[in-house]
Amino acid sequence: MAAPAKSTETDGEVQVKSISPYGTARSTASGEPLTAEEIRLYNEYFQASLYLCLGMLYLQKNPLLKEKLDPSHIKPRSLGHWGSDAGQIFTYMHFNRLIKKYDLDAIFISGPGHGAPAVLSQAYLEGTYSEVYPDKSEDSEGLQRFFKQFSFPGGVGSHATPETPGSLHEGGELGYSISHAFGTVYDNPDLISVTMVGDGESETGPLAASWHSTKFLNPITDGAVLPVLHLNGYKINNPTVLARISHEELEALFVGYGWTPYFVEGSDVESMHQAMAATFEKCVTEIKAVQKKARESKKAFRPRWPMIILRSPKGWTGPRKVDSHYLEGFWRSHQIPLPDARTNPEHLLVLESWMKSYQPEIVFDATGKLKPELKALTPEGNKRMSANPVANGGILRKPLRMPDFRSFAVDVRKAGVTEFGSMAQLGKFFRDIIKSNPTNFRAFGPDETESNKLGAMYEAGKKVWLGDYFAEDEDGGNLAFAGRVMEILSEHTVEGWLEGYLLSGRHGFLNSYEPFIHIIDSMVNQHCKWIEKCNEVEWRVKIASLNILLTATVWRQDHNGFTHQDPGFLDVVANKSPEVVRIYLPPDGNCLLSTADHCLRSTNYVNVIVADKQNHLQYLDMEAAVEHCTKGAGIWKWASNDDGFEPDVVMASCGDVPTHESLAATALLREYVPDIKIRFVNVVDLFKLIAEKEHSHGLSDVEYSALFTYDKPVIFNFHSYPWLIHRLTYQRKGQSNMYVTGYREKGNINTPLELAIRNGTDRFSLAIAAIDRVPRLHNTASAVRESFLNEQIAARNHAWEFGIDDKKYTEWKWPY
Amino acid sequence: MAAPAKSTETDGEVQVKSISPYGTARSTASGEPLTAEEIRLYNEYFQASLYLCLGMLYLQKNPLLKEKLDPSHIKPRSLGHWGSDAGQIFTYMHFNRLIKKYDLDAIFISGPGHGAPAVLSQAYLEGTYSEVYPDKSEDSEGLQRFFKQFSFPGGVGSHATPETPGSLHEGGELGYSISHAFGTVYDNPDLISVTMVGDGESETGPLAASWHSTKFLNPITDGAVLPVLHLNGYKINNPTVLARISHEELEALFVGYGWTPYFVEGSDVESMHQAMAATFEKCVTEIKAVQKKARESKKAFRPRWPMIILRSPKGWTGPRKVDSHYLEGFWRSHQIPLPDARTNPEHLLVLESWMKSYQPEIVFDATGKLKPELKALTPEGNKRMSANPVANGGILRKPLRMPDFRSFAVDVRKAGVTEFGSMAQLGKFFRDIIKSNPTNFRAFGPDETESNKLGAMYEAGKKVWLGDYFAEDEDGGNLAFAGRVMEILSEHTVEGWLEGYLLSGRHGFLNSYEPFIHIIDSMVNQHCKWIEKCNEVEWRVKIASLNILLTATVWRQDHNGFTHQDPGFLDVVANKSPEVVRIYLPPDGNCLLSTADHCLRSTNYVNVIVADKQNHLQYLDMEAAVEHCTKGAGIWKWASNDDGFEPDVVMASCGDVPTHESLAATALLREYVPDIKIRFVNVVDLFKLIAEKEHSHGLSDVEYSALFTYDKPVIFNFHSYPWLIHRLTYQRKGQSNMYVTGYREKGNINTPLELAIRNGTDRFSLAIAAIDRVPRLHNTASAVRESFLNEQIAARNHAWEFGIDDKKYTEWKWPY
Repeated sequence: MAAPAKSTETDGEVQVKSISPYGTARSTASGEPLTAEEIRLYNEYFQASLYLCLGMLYLQKNPLLKEKLDPSHIKPRSLGHWGSDAGQIFTYMHFNRLIKKYDLDAIFISGPGHGAPAVLSQAYLEGTYSEVYPDKSEDSEGLQRFFKQFSFPGGVGSHATPETPGSLHEGGELGYSISHAFGTVYDNPDLISVTMVGDGESETGPLAASWHSTKFLNPITDGAVLPVLHLNGYKINNPTVLARISHEELEALFVGYGWTPYFVEGSDVESMHQAMAATFEKCVTEIKAVQKKARESKKAFRPRWPMIILRSPKGWTGPRKVDSHYLEGFWRSHQIPLPDARTNPEHLLVLESWMKSYQPEIVFDATGKLKPELKALTPEGNKRMSANPVANGGILRKPLRMPDFRSFAVDVRKAGVTEFGSMAQLGKFFRDIIKSNPTNFRAFGPDETESNKLGAMYEAGKKVWLGDYFAEDEDGGNLAFAGRVMEILSEHTVEGWLEGYLLSGRHGFLNSYEPFIHIIDSMVNQHCKWIEKCNEVEWRVKIASLNILLTATVWRQDHNGFTHQDPGFLDVVANKSPEVVRIYLPPDGNCLLSTADHCLRSTNYVNVIVADKQNHLQYLDMEAAVEHCTKGAGIWKWASNDDGFEPDVVMASCGDVPTHESLAATALLREYVPDIKIRFVNVVDLFKLIAEKEHSHGLSDVEYSALFTYDKPVIFNFHSYPWLIHRLTYQRKGQSNMYVTGYREKGNINTPLELAIRNGTDRFSLAIAAIDRVPRLHNTASAVRESFLNEQIAARNHAWEFGIDDKKYTEWKWPY
Repeated sequence: MAAPAKSTETDGEVQVKSISPYGTARSTASGEPLTAEEIRLYNEYFQASLYLCLGMLYLQKNPLLKEKLDPSHIKPRSLGHWGSDAGQIFTYMHFNRLIKKYDLDAIFISGPGHGAPAVLSQAYLEGTYSEVYPDKSEDSEGLQRFFKQFSFPGGVGSHATPETPGSLHEGGELGYSISHAFGTVYDNPDLISVTMVGDGESETGPLAASWHSTKFLNPITDGAVLPVLHLNGYKINNPTVLARISHEELEALFVGYGWTPYFVEGSDVESMHQAMAATFEKCVTEIKAVQKKARESKKAFRPRWPMIILRSPKGWTGPRKVDSHYLEGFWRSHQIPLPDARTNPEHLLVLESWMKSYQPEIVFDATGKLKPELKALTPEGNKRMSANPVANGGILRKPLRMPDFRSFAVDVRKAGVTEFGSMAQLGKFFRDIIKSNPTNFRAFGPDETESNKLGAMYEAGKKVWLGDYFAEDEDGGNLAFAGRVMEILSEHTVEGWLEGYLLSGRHGFLNSYEPFIHIIDSMVNQHCKWIEKCNEVEWRVKIASLNILLTATVWRQDHNGFTHQDPGFLDVVANKSPEVVRIYLPPDGNCLLSTADHCLRSTNYVNVIVADKQNHLQYLDMEAAVEHCTKGAGIWKWASNDDGFEPDVVMASCGDVPTHESLAATALLREYVPDIKIRFVNVVDLFKLIAEKEHSHGLSDVEYSALFTYDKPVIFNFHSYPWLIHRLTYQRKGQSNMYVTGYREKGNINTPLELAIRNGTDRFSLAIAAIDRVPRLHNTASAVRESFLNEQIAARNHAWEFGIDDKKYTEWKWPY
């Protein structure tokens, strides 16, 4: 019986009427493409799939129910989720029909959380699972192993994890299915990414923003995303918003997002088969027509791309009620519907008859293999969505054709005297990479590429824009239907696009203001986890690294104020597995080029590069830069005067702005204390600091001490929060001699020098810290200290009076 | 001249037509409520406001342009943003008319980034600014100071920072204006929060999700949010998506979100005044009608709430072109339109004539004060949006009426023998807080309150739901039009609601799965920054703390797998200023109650409480728990046997699951090595570990050593990533004796014990670590070590065979 929909309205003023998910199919698209025989076959295929899901959730033995179901057949701890399985299977299997009919190239992205049984069942029925994991063979024994491993120690998880053939989207954290899907179809003109979106997932911010991706999709050069919004109705314990608004609002919402929504709603399986078949037919035909028109005319445009809204009961095809509580069509079917099946004999009987209702003895043969007439419904070879190489993108990845980064070198004849914008050279390097790789490299960023001084890229590839154009756009808008730079003011969306683009075998990077990269902390965490697991899955081929360029950094956000100051993304990244994370802070332009070149060639890492976009002093010529970056950390002899001596103090730096101030402090010390012996150390590769047993980049203790000594004071000026250095070096001998300065959350509207002073990272504070830590200077210390303090006060007074720093600090050069 | 809109379509198939922001006003609402005289006055008020904006951006002297504009009058470094100022002012000043006409209670939330000049100009013209900051008086001298301080060292920033009267939303990071606004109007039935939403901001995920907040607003008990979506057209360097889609799609989008959008579009100022006045009139009338109907009938319903889409040129009223480049109506007007006004004499002239076009000599009197007939347009006293106490919510905050948390105590007669779900008791405590505070306390969470075992709250206040109702909801749905629990599957939205609720003077908490709290890292960062700055603003009164309860923690996410395992939010929080952050990890139920009570009574903090939702051993009776939590860290004598001796080893723990394993390790050690002397230390308040100079909670070195000794090995089992403990303790004497275990990103589908073993936090690994570090045990070590390893292997084998841990580990109790 259908549950009647009630409305929140108290009279007719507002149209709020929801539609019950029950009954005969209702759909926008008309037609009955399936014969009665086909319906029978699809129904049996559906049953086979659903049977597999229940098997995964419950069974450790008796996989074909040839014996009477017994408690010992049930796993001691049943884990997993039933709620969205039926709807996802239904979608997947019906798209198979279109793949076969039109010879489509397609992948399936499973957005809803914990829907793994659905996609695992399809990979198994298509034979891919047994090909990849031969012990999970297509027979009774393999089936038993396939069931038992699910959500079982040492087995596979309840999402579409990296172990799942055909998956490039795990979906443990919700919200990224659509942006991932768009990433896969950019520059993949023949691909259709069928993307199941949960209605729970739809409530998240990242998902809500990503529907607008259509304004960045070119129907000539890109493929198509075909979303299937699954109005499953419920989350863990709540109804979903989109399942409880009126049909009118729901339709308007997606028209507003730029889509044409086709509805398929109901619970009656036979009529739902017809409706889904007809609707997919309609959508694929529309996609093909749009692409044909654009490609033949060579004129791109933005159509209202088709999408499907599938409304089916949560836990569809399960028992409607158990123990007088709703199960099908309610949130109680979200997870394990009968959690006590092992201990409650009545529930065991319910489970048995439920599983038998899917007719395992009919849909599988005696050995446990899917009947041939059902197998015939699946595509073959790489046309199977579970076997599409796009979902194992490393297979398709071709190394970038790289221009020689050395040819973009900043001309550095003497260290520390020339100012130059490091980012501008990088922009040119990227420009030439785009030129050499016109269809497998894109740049991503939230509206800041130009502001981040990377605008040279537009010479090779403009910003993709399928929204409307105004006359003003001619005035430097750099917009184009086909381009290489992707910008929307959603860090989530651009990160999702980039991840999808990489996961499907291509290359790219994200540039972002440093403070707002925290917005995607969680996405980056999840990507790290994905690639870490991929390293353990033999058949997964490595993909290009996720390269994140952080610029507009904390030390030059003095004018944007406190909200724009947070360098703590590095702490988040440093928590991830050392197998997959790398952090670089190049001190100047040539080091930045060398680092970027290295990162773009690497695979299966998340590389974070921190480099400011403003003009900065340049230190190393290209040869020295390459050597320095290759070592990752080293002594700068030109800035040191301890040659042949024990240093009194080690001045160390990591990051471009901190290096500048550390050098200025070094110069001050040498000016005021001529006999002081200073060693200057710069760190590019942050993980050089950590113990070698903790990270493959870690220096050995001997190497570390060769830089930092065992017993001398080290004044370490760091780009980010200072305690990250302590966290990396706490095991090092001499760690107690390490004095680290960095951002200490002391921000306001300031000048750059004033901001540094407030956080103790300015030249005067550093010089004072050094003086205070060299015992043999204690006699002369107080006078020198006084001088430094006076200079510091003078600097602040100037800033407070004029609103800018004194030129003698902004135009400072290395004097030796 | 209006720029013609072009379409991306190549023929008539798809309706994609954008509307130019230029020309005579076009609007949905009809009527001409303003007289010609009123239009003149509003126009002059608009001019006065715009003049102030330019003054803030450019001037340090000559504030009324009484002298010819000279380079020395221009700030050496012009900073700030012009782009959205006119549109925001236009909105603010027109709402003033409605406040006066209907005696409304309203605040203004400025969503667009860097729109501070707009709101500062209004606070100044309304007189509030001078009342709060008497040196910024309403005269020429005060005006000069007001101008100079803007984006100037020591002055105020370019967002609506805490220093801004009337602001409770800084807007440095985009995306939270609507969710903040909803937070302010919950339980504020007479409040209207006029919320300016930038079209750049609209592209963000958090904002895109938050439009659905209408499904959680009750027209009887709550006020209204009146959004004004500002189609300003451009971001930093790009057009905005919503300004470049067709009128049809735009309207559909907001109907789909559940709103009735009213359009006001154009650039002709006079007709725009009429259109805006008429449209606001329409919206306020509709809001009042909805509220009246619901309140008189006592039947809540969800109307399509009115909203405004204001399309005006970016940089509206500025020069259309400068040096043949578009300025007004293009992204070039985003920041400082004439950045070289100080050095380029031509641009200085452009600036002067532009500023004079706003007629400062007419709108201000000779002393620099706004003309009385213009002043008369503003509301008075607290009716001024810049003076509304809601925006300084601490004024309105009443302390919670707190039930005695002791009455919810878990009965603990002997430590470590009873298992109990700590969260269930907390749920009852919250239930009674809700009962005692029916209109100023709400619980927030993304669909996990029940799953997190806090369901007892529903007895006092159900989940607010203004979406449609189905029959199934009667079966434990716990939905109601009026409730106390707020759930939507968007961490961003619930966090934004809670922040708005707190900022406007009320109380609440957020509960969330631990792994996905990283989704709102950046929001929490921004809230920390807000309250830290508030501490420096004298007139800001403290608000209730932001309480975040993290549950479903990493150690019990073994079955959900790797994606659900990330305890690193603590690292993000620990980077914020020690003035505002507190982190608690209560080891059991009574400690959890004591901690929660403490947090709910506190003000101006972000309190993070980490506590698992599963059943756990209970250790302390309520008296001991209060004492332990008050100290924050202490020796558990009942678990120690070093009384009167030097301990061989300190076993330490922080977090509920780690404490359980540490105790089990302690028992193992005492069983196998009877003469070992062990001290057991538990830490509740994480910042007790840090040096006292770094955080007010930090223990003195003497106190610290009294717990951890100077020289004994410490085996510290931590809830989160282990290096956070090293980062907190690196300055402590004996830090090199500290061996910390914690989550090391080693996850998979596991049992709880197996997950612990993989990360080295299980009892066996801890016991072995202790054995290895006590020199006097080296003779007996290898045999004991072997036993522990064998037990560990047996435990793993059991888990791998049965999928569950052996009962002897899950039902373990403290044996002494």
